[in-house]
Amino acid sequence: MKARREYVEKIVLEAGQLIKQRITEDMKIERKNGQRSDLVTSVDYEIERFLVERISEKFPQDSFLTEEKTVTLEETDHVWIIDPIDGTMNFIYSLRDFAISIALYVKGVGELGIVYDVMADELFVALKGQGATLNGKKLDKVTPVTLKQSIVDISLKTIWNLKNNLIADFKDLTPAVLTHRNLGSAALRITHIGINRVHFYISDRLSIWDIAAAVIILEELGGVHNFMDEELIYNSDSFFFMGANNKEIAQELHDKFFL
Amino acid sequence: MKARREYVEKIVLEAGQLIKQRITEDMKIERKNGQRSDLVTSVDYEIERFLVERISEKFPQDSFLTEEKTVTLEETDHVWIIDPIDGTMNFIYSLRDFAISIALYVKGVGELGIVYDVMADELFVALKGQGATLNGKKLDKVTPVTLKQSIVDISLKTIWNLKNNLIADFKDLTPAVLTHRNLGSAALRITHIGINRVHFYISDRLSIWDIAAAVIILEELGGVHNFMDEELIYNSDSFFFMGANNKEIAQELHDKFFL
Repeated sequence: MKARREYVEKIVLEAGQLIKQRITEDMKIERKNGQRSDLVTSVDYEIERFLVERISEKFPQDSFLTEEKTVTLEETDHVWIIDPIDGTMNFIYSLRDFAISIALYVKGVGELGIVYDVMADELFVALKGQGATLNGKKLDKVTPVTLKQSIVDISLKTIWNLKNNLIADFKDLTPAVLTHRNLGSAALRITHIGINRVHFYISDRLSIWDIAAAVIILEELGGVHNFMDEELIYNSDSFFFMGANNKEIAQELHDKFFL
Repeated sequence: MKARREYVEKIVLEAGQLIKQRITEDMKIERKNGQRSDLVTSVDYEIERFLVERISEKFPQDSFLTEEKTVTLEETDHVWIIDPIDGTMNFIYSLRDFAISIALYVKGVGELGIVYDVMADELFVALKGQGATLNGKKLDKVTPVTLKQSIVDISLKTIWNLKNNLIADFKDLTPAVLTHRNLGSAALRITHIGINRVHFYISDRLSIWDIAAAVIILEELGGVHNFMDEELIYNSDSFFFMGANNKEIAQELHDKFFL
């Protein structure tokens, strides 16, 4: 695991440099799945191919489950789950607040999670059972907060979809919490719970590559999420996700706002 | 004006360095106005005093209207409107996404606006009638978008307050626009409209120091806001604010969602 961690940390930083170069050049933007808000750029594909190729060179037995599907999953013991650019819309419009997300799952168990905020140069790395680091420095566990002290990251789209599907009604969230944010990157925000930047991240429609690395980091830092007791299934389905600072406020939020 | 611009650009960068130093130290946090979400730190006061003192040394006739009230406004021709840290909650929790905002109004007219995103090291400067720069590089005018192409920065609190006060109902905003964000800094987001990072910024409760610098930058980059035809009044009242990429989408949003 140490060899894989060291190697992949290095190529993630290289991929970050590549993205910074590409930002100064013209990027090709496509729409995926006919969704107006689901954009992908030529850089997403390029970075995914770069990561897959470099890992395959060194660890040819490993397999891959990736967002942009430049490679087909052939399930082996070691599966890398990759989102080359999480927060593509931020990448396109803001040129910041996006991340490279890469996780290693061994027989279904998350062993290594790396989330790299390229423009802020923040590299988060977690090894299962061994804690998490930010740019090589060991991170403390989260500081527990109450619901009233919480910053909640959620999109209007998630609120709207949960309401329309009769799952949750967040219309009175505002007075129940400290404040609200919406950054637009799942991998970053789930990671940020671990360092107390926010205390909840909620989305009604994530995929495995959005969360695979960040949940390992979050767990190592003492945070919680709604897949902690479930086995990981390697597919591309979308699902509801909630990450939180601690179990009590997750339960309290659920009791107050879910239908 | 050139002397003032050059001098103040320099001390704003110095203030940014001071903030970065303080981030590594312990900060004292207080609540203002009994508001749970209205926080102020010792650094807000220190930076405000630093800016006021340094400007007063060089331009003793100038006066000041500031968020933290470390100085009393004695209205002269040249009034500096200062928010030492816009986005204090981001400053406290995230150590990023906050800005120094400083504007010079001459007989009520905004002549110089400076917004400095300290951690991203992005210095925005605008001189009335002469365009705006980012880190010294001249910026292009905004690229016009339609409502469907718009990214809207608005907080749940603003949505909630506008709804409860029967001013606007944004419950169906999601399908009408590209996406939604909430960064938590008015000065930054109004400025970001000018560089196409977002296309709307809406808040139900801003004060003059939140917007004084950013609206000069926005105007120079071709954006619009709801105070463009009004005279500036030097007080601390709070007000509704909307900044937008262009006049047509501002009108369209208003027609669709305001009651």
